[in-house]
Amino acid sequence: MTLSLREMSGLVRDVADFPKPGVLFRDITPVLAHREGLHSMIEHLTVPWLNAGITLVAGVEARGFLLAPMVAASLGVGMVPIRKPGKLPWHSTRREYALEYGTDALEMHIDAVRPTDRVLIIDDVLATGGTAAAAVGLVRDCGGVVAGAAFVIELGSLAGRRLLSDVLVTSVLCY
Amino acid sequence: MTLSLREMSGLVRDVADFPKPGVLFRDITPVLAHREGLHSMIEHLTVPWLNAGITLVAGVEARGFLLAPMVAASLGVGMVPIRKPGKLPWHSTRREYALEYGTDALEMHIDAVRPTDRVLIIDDVLATGGTAAAAVGLVRDCGGVVAGAAFVIELGSLAGRRLLSDVLVTSVLCY
Repeated sequence: MTLSLREMSGLVRDVADFPKPGVLFRDITPVLAHREGLHSMIEHLTVPWLNAGITLVAGVEARGFLLAPMVAASLGVGMVPIRKPGKLPWHSTRREYALEYGTDALEMHIDAVRPTDRVLIIDDVLATGGTAAAAVGLVRDCGGVVAGAAFVIELGSLAGRRLLSDVLVTSVLCY
Repeated sequence: MTLSLREMSGLVRDVADFPKPGVLFRDITPVLAHREGLHSMIEHLTVPWLNAGITLVAGVEARGFLLAPMVAASLGVGMVPIRKPGKLPWHSTRREYALEYGTDALEMHIDAVRPTDRVLIIDDVLATGGTAAAAVGLVRDCGGVVAGAAFVIELGSLAGRRLLSDVLVTSVLCY
């Protein structure tokens, strides 16, 4: 059984003041823990991309790892992990991105994406878009085409789509 | 198509001296990137547990996140993330475990597991067993029954099963 967006949204837990005061965190762990919730989340995430010619799904550490392999399996393709610095064992490419204070970085194996690949990037939340934009850059560094990016939750007020203006973006739940 | 264990094993990449000199790292990213490899890895991981009455799958951050949701979906149950400290937004329980130098810890939401649950713990690699033993402890702290633990790769020389002597353990590939 597939849950409606309203039913799925009802499973998301709002946690005030996490990770810092003033932030309302949208916690998807109750959706993952719910048998139909897990199935439905992946279905809603995948359906817009069924006929987009995706050849590879990229998942962003850590919560994107919970979603990307299932989306890849649903689309009948493989997946590639995009990781925090120093975690990947093979030759990697790296993109830095700005945080509120300072910078962070993401890495991807250089042989993970081929120039013929059409890649769908997956993460749980689209907030300011910095992480997703770095992921887009990594795929393009390897010559891959970014077909789009898909998120479970989009925080509209943070306008993350502005950093992804040349990428097709879908999100399941918008706040 | 499901790959044989030999075919899957052929996709695992051996990387010398990672994460430190003298360690041979078994890199499963080429398996994930391979359409049939991804499917086969999950199938080999899940099959021993099809009739074990599992009601919940727990995945250990970060690489366990790549596997646990797919295993949960295959078993028709939900999944719970076991995370590094400070990442979970809700009330959590915590277990410390020993590293070669110092300690690390894992956390789990206190409402993630119910006393009626039979939980399967999933991670990519069984090495010394410290991480897995901490995960077992977290499930039991919440009153859940640990039905077992399943790994893609077991490093037999590190004897991780010794720390899991009261848990049923399966692994897909042993080195």
